[in-house]
Amino acid sequence: MQSEIITVGSELLSGETVDLHSSYLSRELHSLGIDVCLHTSVGDDASRLHEVLSVAHTRSELILLAGGLGPTMDDLTKEIVSEVTGAELVQDPKAVHHLKQYFKGRMEAIPANNFKQTYVFSGGFVFYNKNGTAPGLAVQVDGITYILLPGPPRELVPMFEEQVRPFLIREVISDKKQVILAKSLSFFGIGESLLEEKIKDLIQQHENPLMATYAKEIGVVVRMTAWAKSEAEANRLIDDLKRNVLDRIGEYCYSEKDESLEEVVVSELLNKGKTVSVIESCTGGLLAHLLTSIPGSSQAFYGGLVTYTNKAKENIASVPASCLREHGAVSSATAEIMTENTMKLFDTDFAVGITGVAGPAEAEEKKVGTVYIGLAESGKPVRVYQFQLKGSRRRIQLMAAKYACFLLQQCLKKGETTR
Amino acid sequence: MQSEIITVGSELLSGETVDLHSSYLSRELHSLGIDVCLHTSVGDDASRLHEVLSVAHTRSELILLAGGLGPTMDDLTKEIVSEVTGAELVQDPKAVHHLKQYFKGRMEAIPANNFKQTYVFSGGFVFYNKNGTAPGLAVQVDGITYILLPGPPRELVPMFEEQVRPFLIREVISDKKQVILAKSLSFFGIGESLLEEKIKDLIQQHENPLMATYAKEIGVVVRMTAWAKSEAEANRLIDDLKRNVLDRIGEYCYSEKDESLEEVVVSELLNKGKTVSVIESCTGGLLAHLLTSIPGSSQAFYGGLVTYTNKAKENIASVPASCLREHGAVSSATAEIMTENTMKLFDTDFAVGITGVAGPAEAEEKKVGTVYIGLAESGKPVRVYQFQLKGSRRRIQLMAAKYACFLLQQCLKKGETTR
Repeated sequence: MQSEIITVGSELLSGETVDLHSSYLSRELHSLGIDVCLHTSVGDDASRLHEVLSVAHTRSELILLAGGLGPTMDDLTKEIVSEVTGAELVQDPKAVHHLKQYFKGRMEAIPANNFKQTYVFSGGFVFYNKNGTAPGLAVQVDGITYILLPGPPRELVPMFEEQVRPFLIREVISDKKQVILAKSLSFFGIGESLLEEKIKDLIQQHENPLMATYAKEIGVVVRMTAWAKSEAEANRLIDDLKRNVLDRIGEYCYSEKDESLEEVVVSELLNKGKTVSVIESCTGGLLAHLLTSIPGSSQAFYGGLVTYTNKAKENIASVPASCLREHGAVSSATAEIMTENTMKLFDTDFAVGITGVAGPAEAEEKKVGTVYIGLAESGKPVRVYQFQLKGSRRRIQLMAAKYACFLLQQCLKKGETTR
Repeated sequence: MQSEIITVGSELLSGETVDLHSSYLSRELHSLGIDVCLHTSVGDDASRLHEVLSVAHTRSELILLAGGLGPTMDDLTKEIVSEVTGAELVQDPKAVHHLKQYFKGRMEAIPANNFKQTYVFSGGFVFYNKNGTAPGLAVQVDGITYILLPGPPRELVPMFEEQVRPFLIREVISDKKQVILAKSLSFFGIGESLLEEKIKDLIQQHENPLMATYAKEIGVVVRMTAWAKSEAEANRLIDDLKRNVLDRIGEYCYSEKDESLEEVVVSELLNKGKTVSVIESCTGGLLAHLLTSIPGSSQAFYGGLVTYTNKAKENIASVPASCLREHGAVSSATAEIMTENTMKLFDTDFAVGITGVAGPAEAEEKKVGTVYIGLAESGKPVRVYQFQLKGSRRRIQLMAAKYACFLLQQCLKKGETTR
């Protein structure tokens, strides 16, 4: 099935807003086995939208539009789809009720403009909007399905997940008796191309489950989508493939969901009732920031030190001047003492310490990207891991902090790291 | 002048890659007074690109294409432009030389495929590529200008800034005798809509300089672009408008460039030879991370404490238990002591301390978003500022860390803050 995506809004063409919807919707369609052949962004311009839609109508079987469903005169998506397809707009009593309820909760009068949003396609489908006033709409004309979604991401994303995805599976994808199930695996410490090489034959062999890899800023996600007569059967298909993938590259897999390393670390610490503290030199607070970005982390994360100078390492983390003099601040010995002392200072079950050269300049005659990560666990000797990271200052800081999370996660998982 | 942007690459349609080029190029074109009427993304699909280009050729006077200039069989942008426009491709000796030079530095043999990249439009322009092997190209046919750019951002962005922007000014924008000059002002602590309201009449009055506002994730940038017979005249036009803008909203302006608060803070500390340390509770290391993300910050930033628990505040920052008991961790009194003690501990000229409730849950019966920021300057009493911030946990942490930078920057600028 061939589809295309049209995003509507002058803020896209001025460059003020980056079009995130087209990539989001494409990933979602792709996971349902639907091809996307084109993205188009148009401004709030009736004749241009008419022109674009008229061509799309002759080309694609599924057309997704995002934006232009607001209450103002500028918002014309629904009206132009009606013009191009001939589908009639009628007022929907349920949408009127929904609008009144929405404003009731807010104790404001309903602006007259908003009633424009209660018009829907005669004979179409309506996706009522929990997070705003514009309902989403679907209508099928000449065998072509149009889906119209509101522009704000906090309206579009939940509407797609909760209503449009099930609608597509139910009404649009050919075999209506099938269940579709998607699962993700998250990997770290292996590049996308190497990962893909290791499972290339599985990707190529399988039409069902369909498997694809997505490079994130950090790490790679493998997404598997299965179609089957029942949920149990779909689950079995995915589990078989998953086992096969994990047999080959399981050592790099840190989660059987699409989530970040810091989310996994914090949730495993909370599950086990364990605590952690950190000490950072070259990452300058980034590791603490990643962990504390997760809600609820205060039960597991007790605190951190950013010892950016040698004096701070001596005075605050009690690293002996002799250690800094003999081995340097960027050394296994310093990482070990920093980490050990931090665990004691905060009285936590674990501590992680990072010291290294983030660049752009070398330090202590050590190359940019040289990083030592100490991992302390109460009652055990501190382990120190050395890395040689590549890229910009920003990239080295981020990779060092993520490796620290990965080491801690591996340790939490097995009581022993894999590297 | 009407323009459009076409980005090429199957990774755009699968959703793996977000199309950042369309918004980047739109902002740049907009700042030159060029309208953008459409964005299109197509895959590596010759017939689809041909279809899209054939329509674009009848619609726009300027067509920018990004991607599909690589060495592989998939890369077809140049070839399709040639088909649609009739512009002939010929091998460019300078491009051959450039390719050889590029590989000479790398001690690798040149893959035969790469020679495809040495073909350019007969009678066109070539933008040689400092950061890759694909030259950018321009060609003018039937009064329509085509500009073809390589897809990787680290190739496209410098090529646009250094070569394409001047080319557009010189060859495409009508009055060739004019100089074009753009300048930005960065604002913080005022929302985009309020800022726009305060200078709306200036935005509407002025066609030259053209003025536009851009909301960043944090803060707002005002960009002014002037056209004139000479650089001095363009500068004068911009300076007059700038003075007018600053008279109205100067208190929120932290830089006369488009740069982040942390960049300004670090460069002002370095300029003045001053040092800073930080202590963070609810921001969990984010402030330290922002400051240390700037290269060279180690000369100005001595270190930080992340005291996420009360015990850490007592043991590491020496906040008296009585203060925590009487006033709470989220209080002006605690912020003051945390900040003062941190300045002493790190022996710096300044210290900044943040304590607050990032959410999602309330703490100490204080509302989510309550934040106290302490600012210490050697030899002066600590000042504490209270904020009530809104939004998600992530947003509150980010706004608190940015306000801390803003307060420090105002203090560095005047020796006294404005709030």
